[in-house]
Amino acid sequence: MVEVRRFLHQNPELSFEEKETPAFIASFYRELGVEVRTGVGGNGVVARIMGGRPGKTIALRADFDALPIQDEKDVPYKSTVPNKMHACGHDGHTSTLLHLAKALNEMKEELSGTYVLIHQHAEEYAPGGAKPMIEDGCLDGVDLVFGTHLWATEPLGKIQHRVGPIMAAADRFEITIQGAGGHGAQPHKTKDAIVVGSQLVTNLQQIVSRRVNPIDSAVVTVGSFVADNAFNVIADSAKLIGTVRTFNPDVRTQIENEIERVVKGTCLAANCEYQYSYFRGYPAVVNHEAEMNHVVEQAELVPEVTVIEEMEPQMGGEDFAYYLEERKGAFFFTGAQQEGVTNPYPHHHPKFDFNEKAMLIAAKTLGAAAINA
Amino acid sequence: MVEVRRFLHQNPELSFEEKETPAFIASFYRELGVEVRTGVGGNGVVARIMGGRPGKTIALRADFDALPIQDEKDVPYKSTVPNKMHACGHDGHTSTLLHLAKALNEMKEELSGTYVLIHQHAEEYAPGGAKPMIEDGCLDGVDLVFGTHLWATEPLGKIQHRVGPIMAAADRFEITIQGAGGHGAQPHKTKDAIVVGSQLVTNLQQIVSRRVNPIDSAVVTVGSFVADNAFNVIADSAKLIGTVRTFNPDVRTQIENEIERVVKGTCLAANCEYQYSYFRGYPAVVNHEAEMNHVVEQAELVPEVTVIEEMEPQMGGEDFAYYLEERKGAFFFTGAQQEGVTNPYPHHHPKFDFNEKAMLIAAKTLGAAAINA
Amino acid sequence: MVEVRRFLHQNPELSFEEKETPAFIASFYRELGVEVRTGVGGNGVVARIMGGRPGKTIALRADFDALPIQDEKDVPYKSTVPNKMHACGHDGHTSTLLHLAKALNEMKEELSGTYVLIHQHAEEYAPGGAKPMIEDGCLDGVDLVFGTHLWATEPLGKIQHRVGPIMAAADRFEITIQGAGGHGAQPHKTKDAIVVGSQLVTNLQQIVSRRVNPIDSAVVTVGSFVADNAFNVIADSAKLIGTVRTFNPDVRTQIENEIERVVKGTCLAANCEYQYSYFRGYPAVVNHEAEMNHVVEQAELVPEVTVIEEMEPQMGGEDFAYYLEERKGAFFFTGAQQEGVTNPYPHHHPKFDFNEKAMLIAAKTLGAAAINA
Amino acid sequence: MVEVRRFLHQNPELSFEEKETPAFIASFYRELGVEVRTGVGGNGVVARIMGGRPGKTIALRADFDALPIQDEKDVPYKSTVPNKMHACGHDGHTSTLLHLAKALNEMKEELSGTYVLIHQHAEEYAPGGAKPMIEDGCLDGVDLVFGTHLWATEPLGKIQHRVGPIMAAADRFEITIQGAGGHGAQPHKTKDAIVVGSQLVTNLQQIVSRRVNPIDSAVVTVGSFVADNAFNVIADSAKLIGTVRTFNPDVRTQIENEIERVVKGTCLAANCEYQYSYFRGYPAVVNHEAEMNHVVEQAELVPEVTVIEEMEPQMGGEDFAYYLEERKGAFFFTGAQQEGVTNPYPHHHPKFDFNEKAMLIAAKTLGAAAINA
Repeated sequence: MVEVRRFLHQNPELSFEEKETPAFIASFYRELGVEVRTGVGGNGVVARIMGGRPGKTIALRADFDALPIQDEKDVPYKSTVPNKMHACGHDGHTSTLLHLAKALNEMKEELSGTYVLIHQHAEEYAPGGAKPMIEDGCLDGVDLVFGTHLWATEPLGKIQHRVGPIMAAADRFEITIQGAGGHGAQPHKTKDAIVVGSQLVTNLQQIVSRRVNPIDSAVVTVGSFVADNAFNVIADSAKLIGTVRTFNPDVRTQIENEIERVVKGTCLAANCEYQYSYFRGYPAVVNHEAEMNHVVEQAELVPEVTVIEEMEPQMGGEDFAYYLEERKGAFFFTGAQQEGVTNPYPHHHPKFDFNEKAMLIAAKTLGAAAINA
Repeated sequence: MVEVRRFLHQNPELSFEEKETPAFIASFYRELGVEVRTGVGGNGVVARIMGGRPGKTIALRADFDALPIQDEKDVPYKSTVPNKMHACGHDGHTSTLLHLAKALNEMKEELSGTYVLIHQHAEEYAPGGAKPMIEDGCLDGVDLVFGTHLWATEPLGKIQHRVGPIMAAADRFEITIQGAGGHGAQPHKTKDAIVVGSQLVTNLQQIVSRRVNPIDSAVVTVGSFVADNAFNVIADSAKLIGTVRTFNPDVRTQIENEIERVVKGTCLAANCEYQYSYFRGYPAVVNHEAEMNHVVEQAELVPEVTVIEEMEPQMGGEDFAYYLEERKGAFFFTGAQQEGVTNPYPHHHPKFDFNEKAMLIAAKTLGAAAINA
Repeated sequence: MVEVRRFLHQNPELSFEEKETPAFIASFYRELGVEVRTGVGGNGVVARIMGGRPGKTIALRADFDALPIQDEKDVPYKSTVPNKMHACGHDGHTSTLLHLAKALNEMKEELSGTYVLIHQHAEEYAPGGAKPMIEDGCLDGVDLVFGTHLWATEPLGKIQHRVGPIMAAADRFEITIQGAGGHGAQPHKTKDAIVVGSQLVTNLQQIVSRRVNPIDSAVVTVGSFVADNAFNVIADSAKLIGTVRTFNPDVRTQIENEIERVVKGTCLAANCEYQYSYFRGYPAVVNHEAEMNHVVEQAELVPEVTVIEEMEPQMGGEDFAYYLEERKGAFFFTGAQQEGVTNPYPHHHPKFDFNEKAMLIAAKTLGAAAINA
Repeated sequence: MVEVRRFLHQNPELSFEEKETPAFIASFYRELGVEVRTGVGGNGVVARIMGGRPGKTIALRADFDALPIQDEKDVPYKSTVPNKMHACGHDGHTSTLLHLAKALNEMKEELSGTYVLIHQHAEEYAPGGAKPMIEDGCLDGVDLVFGTHLWATEPLGKIQHRVGPIMAAADRFEITIQGAGGHGAQPHKTKDAIVVGSQLVTNLQQIVSRRVNPIDSAVVTVGSFVADNAFNVIADSAKLIGTVRTFNPDVRTQIENEIERVVKGTCLAANCEYQYSYFRGYPAVVNHEAEMNHVVEQAELVPEVTVIEEMEPQMGGEDFAYYLEERKGAFFFTGAQQEGVTNPYPHHHPKFDFNEKAMLIAAKTLGAAAINA
C-alpha cells in the first residue's frame, strides 16, 4: 500500500492531463485478472468485481489527480516532477482503493453483490472528472456509493461524518463595473467606477445578512477588487471577483440571482454598465442519512478507529457531490495526521504529507461499509 | 415711516390670507391720488406713478405678508394677533416702499419714466405671490425691477450685493421605501426598509460629491428618516424627507433626476418599491450684472451707506427670483441691525426686530436706483 | 383536562401579576393530597410526588402566564378579561401537567424516584419566572428536567425535537447617535445624525456577513430608525433599536461587542457621540443529546404520536433555557393544530386556539419520558 | 519669437533636469548685455533690467520645463528627444518672456522702475521650482509679479482672468488598509480589507457632501483601489490612492484632517490597522483683486485682444501660487488655439500644439501690465 502510494507520489499528473496514472491503475487490475474499463469520461478507470452471491452493487471512489504545486518536502519519495505534487492525498486514496479492491477480489466468492471501483481523474479542477464519468456510465447499475478523504490535520484513528451537507458548493463570480473615467478633479464629467464598486461591495453584504435564511450557511466573498490608476484620475472601470459558498441548492440559486440584482440596481443608481458572470463549481456534498449512519456503524467495528465524531460542514468543495446526487451513499473523512507532528501542514501546502497508516483505516472502513451494505 | 411700519407690525396677516394689509396699502395710495390696482394675482396691490418726462418703466417690489409665529418681543408695537408676527421685516419693506412712492409722487413732474410699485402678498409660503402677480400683469411694460431685504443681522449702513446667484433655489423631496415587514428574527422573509433607506442615504451623498460640478454649490439633505417600530420587527417601510439647495437651474434639474435614479437603483437592488416626489420651491434669485452694478453705484451716493460689500450667496429662498427671470434687475440686502445689540435675533425668531432707520437707507438706495436707471 | 384548560383560558393573568392561577394550581394539588409549595421565586408553584421506589428526581415544567392581547375568538370558553388572553397555550401546558401529576400520584407506589412539578409564572416577559424559581430552589435535588410546548401550527400527532439549540437567545439593543443639528442648507455647521445612522445600519450588516462563523446562525436586525424632523433641518440625533438572535453563547457575546465597536468606529469617523445599550433576553434553549434522544424513544411508544421529526432551530426565545443550563434535560414541541383548519392562527394572534387533544399526547410523552428516565 | 520657441520645442528637458535650456536663456540675456543670474534655486535663471526712471519693481515669470511624453505631432519642429516633449507650452512662455525682455531692454531708458525676468524650472513636477527660487531670492525687492499661461483650447485673442482663486490646490493621499487575509470561505477568521476599503470610499463621499461649506469647491477622489487576489481568498490589505482639490486653504486643511478621521473610524469599526499619508502639492493660485483688474485694463488696450472674460476657476495646479503668496500680482490665461482647428488636443496630449501668434498677445499684455503698473 505504501509502495504504490509512494510510486504515485513521485509521479504526479495534473487534472485532465492524467496518462500514466490511469495506465498504472488499469494494469494493477489486469494483473489481478479484474475486469477494467479505461478512458471513462476522459481519463477515468472503472473496475468491477462480482461477488459469489447476489446482492447490491456498491461503488467505491478514489480520485487520482495531483496539483500544480512544487513539492518542498524533504523525503525520499518526494515528487520527481517540477511544479507538480500530490498535495491533497489523492495518491493515498488511489493506493487505498487498489488494495481494498485486491482484498475484495481475493474473497470475492464469499461476497454478495458487485463492487465497482471508480478511479476518478480531475477532482481538483472544475468542472471535474466525476460528472463525465457518471455520464459515461460509471454509476450504471450501482445502488450505493461511498468515498472518503484522508485528512492530514485530524488525528490518526478518527473518522468524521455528518448526515446532510458535509462539504459546500463552491462557486465563482466576476463583476466588471463600467463607468466613465476622467480627470480626478472633474467628477461630474465621469462615472466613478471605484465609488460604484465600493457601494456594490457594501450592498453585497446584505445578501448574507438579510436575504438568506439565518439557519442556512452562506458566504459571499469579494476576494479581489482592482481599479489600478494614477492618483489624479477617476476610474473608468473596476473588476471584482469572488466566491460563493452554500450547502442548500436553493440558497445557491438565490444568491446567484441576488448578486445580479444588487449589481444591476447599484449600477443603475450610478448610471453605469456592468458585466456579471457566475460560474458554478461543484455542488454541496450531501450525505444520505441511512448510508452515513451505516458507515458510522461499520467504522465502530474497525479496531484502529478510536474516535468517531460528527463534524461541522466544511466550506470546501468536492465533486463527490455528483455521485450523491445520483445515488444513495456517503462521504467521510479519515484522520491522517502524522505522529509526532503538532502543527501539520494543511492540504495544498508545498510541504503537505499524511500518515500512511491512515490508508489501512480508510480501506477497512470503506470495505466494511461496502461488504455489509 | 416708523408709524406705518408699527401699525403693520401690530396687525400681521399670513400669506394668502392678507386682507387688511392690501386695503391699507391701497388707501394710502388713493389718499395720495396715485392710481392703484388691487387683487393683483390674488392679494397683490400695484400702484403706478408717471413721471413728467418720458423714460424707462421701473418696478420696485415690497412684500407684505407675516409669519405664523407668536411675537415674544416686549415692545409697545408688538403683534396684537396671537401666533402671527412680522418676523421677517416685510412690514418694514412695505413702509419703505410706501414712503418712497410718496416721495416719487411728490417729485413726479421732474422724473423721467414710469414707476410701478409692486406690493406683493405671500412671499413666505410657496408657491408665493410673485408668480400670480406676474401672470396678472404686474410686470407689463416694465423694463427693470429692483428690490431689497432689510437684514437684521448685518450692521446699519451696509449694503450687500452680488452679481449672479444671491439666494438659492430651495426644494423639497419625499421618498417612501416600501419593503416588506416581518419578524425581526426572519430577515429572509422580509425586505428590510431600514437597510434600504440607510443604503439610500449613503448613496445620495454621491450626488454632491461626484455628480455635481465642484464649481457649483449644491446641498442634498435628508432631514427626516422615520421607520418607527418595535425592536423585534423588520421595518415594512421607511419615510425620508429632505431638501435640495442649488443656484444653477441645470444643477437643480440634474439633482432632481439624480435623486430619482439613485432611489430607483437602490430599491431595485433590494427588490423594493418606492414613491418619490420632488416639490420645487422658488428658483434661485439671480442678479443681472449691469443692474446690480448700477445699484452699487447708486448706493455709493447715499450718505448713510457706509459699507458696500459683495456677499456670499445665501442658501435661503425668495420669490423675487421670478421677477428676475422675466426682467432685468437686482435684489440686494440692506443692513438693519439694531444699535447696541451684539447678538441680534435671526429672522423668523419670536423675538426678531430690526433697526427702523434702515428703512430710510433702503428707500434712498432703491429710489436712487430707480430714478437714475 | 379540557375543563381545567378552559377554566384557565377564561381567566388569564399577565406575567408577574398571576394570583388566581397559582392559587388554583395549588388547591388542585392540595385536593390530591400532594405536597405543594407556593410563592416560589415570585408566583411559582412547585409540587412533589415521591414514588414508591428509589430513583432519579425528575422535574417537569409548565408555564401558566397569559398575554396582553384581546381575545377575538368566537368560542364559549373565550377570555372573560378584556385585553388579556392565553394566546400561547400556557393554559394547555398547565392543564397537561396537572393531569399528568394526578396520574403519577395515582400510580406513585409503582413508580421509582421523585417527580417535581414546576408550574412557572412569567414566561412571556423577560427576565421571566424560571430564573427566580431556580434561585428559590425549584431544581434542588433534581436530576433531569423536561418540558414541551404545544404548537398550534404543526399537525396533531407530531413531536418535534432537536439535539442542541432548539430556540434562540433573543436580545435587544438601543443606539442613539448624537450629532449636531442645524439648517438643512448648512451641512458644514452640523453633524448629520441621519447620515451617520445610515452608515451605521450599513456597517452593521457586516457582523453577520463577515464576522460570524458562517456555520453559526445569527441575526442582527435594526427594527426601528427614528430621526423625525422637518424637511429643511439636519438631524441632531437618531435613535436605532433592534434585536440580536443567536444559538451559540460565544457568538452572542461576540455580536454584543462587535456592535459596540462598529458604533464606536462609525461615530468616530463622523465625530459624533453615541449611547449604546445591550439587553440580554433569555439564552438559547439547548437540548442535551442523551435526554433528547430519550424523549424521542419514549415518544415512539405513544400510540397517538404519528410523526417524530427533527426540526430546524426556532429563532424565538423561551426561559426553559435556564433549566437546561442547570440540569440535563430536553424541551420539545407537541403538534396541536386544530382538525379541519388549514391556515391556523399563529401563536400570539388574537384568534389563536389549539387542539385540546394535544394535551393528552403531551402528557403521555412527558409522562413516559419521566417514568422511564 | 517663433524661432526661439521652435528651438526649445525640439530640445525639451524634464523638470529638475534642465541644463541646456537655462544655458540658452542665460546666453540670450548676455548677448543683450542684460544682467543675469543662473542656478537660482536649482536650475532657475533671473535677469534684471533697470528702467531709466525710478519706480516699482515688477517681476514677470515664465516656466521652461517639459514633460515625459513622446511627441507624436507631424511637424518639422517636433521634439528631437524621445519621450520628452514641450506638451504644455512652456517653450512658448519662455520665448514670450525672452522677447518681451528684449523689447523692455531696448526701451529701458524711457521705463520707470525695475523689471525682473524669472525663468523658472520644474513647474510640472511637485515640489516645483518656484519655491526654491523664491527662497533663493528671486522675489527680493519685487513689488508685483505677473504671469500667464498660453491655453491651446481657448481661441486666439481671448484673455481669461479671475479675481481670487483661479487654479486649485492639488494634493495627493495614500491609504493602506491592513486587514487580515484568509480563505474566502472563512470570513470570521479574517478582517476583510476589501469590505473595509469599500466602506471607506463610501464614507469619504460625506466629506464633500456634508463637511465642506457648499459655497466652497472641493473634490476628494479615490483614483486607485487595488486589492488584487485570487477569487477564493479574503483580502489581507487594500491600497487606495487619490487626490484632493481645493481653493480655500482652510478647506484644504479641513479635508486633510477629515480624511484621517474617516479612515481611523472606519478601520476602528472593522478592527483593522491603516497607514495614511497626505502629500501637499501646490497651493491654489489666488489672484489679487487690484492687480488682476489692472491686467484686465491693460489687456483692453492690446489691439489683438478681442475677448476678455472672467473664467471659472480651474481644478488644475500651478506653482505660480507661491509667488502670489509672497507678493501682490496676478496670473491669467492667453488663448492660443490654432486657427482652423475645432477640437484642439488638450495640454499634456502627445499631439499638443498651440498657436504661436498667441506669444505676441501674451507678451503685449504682460508688457503693458508691467510698464503701467
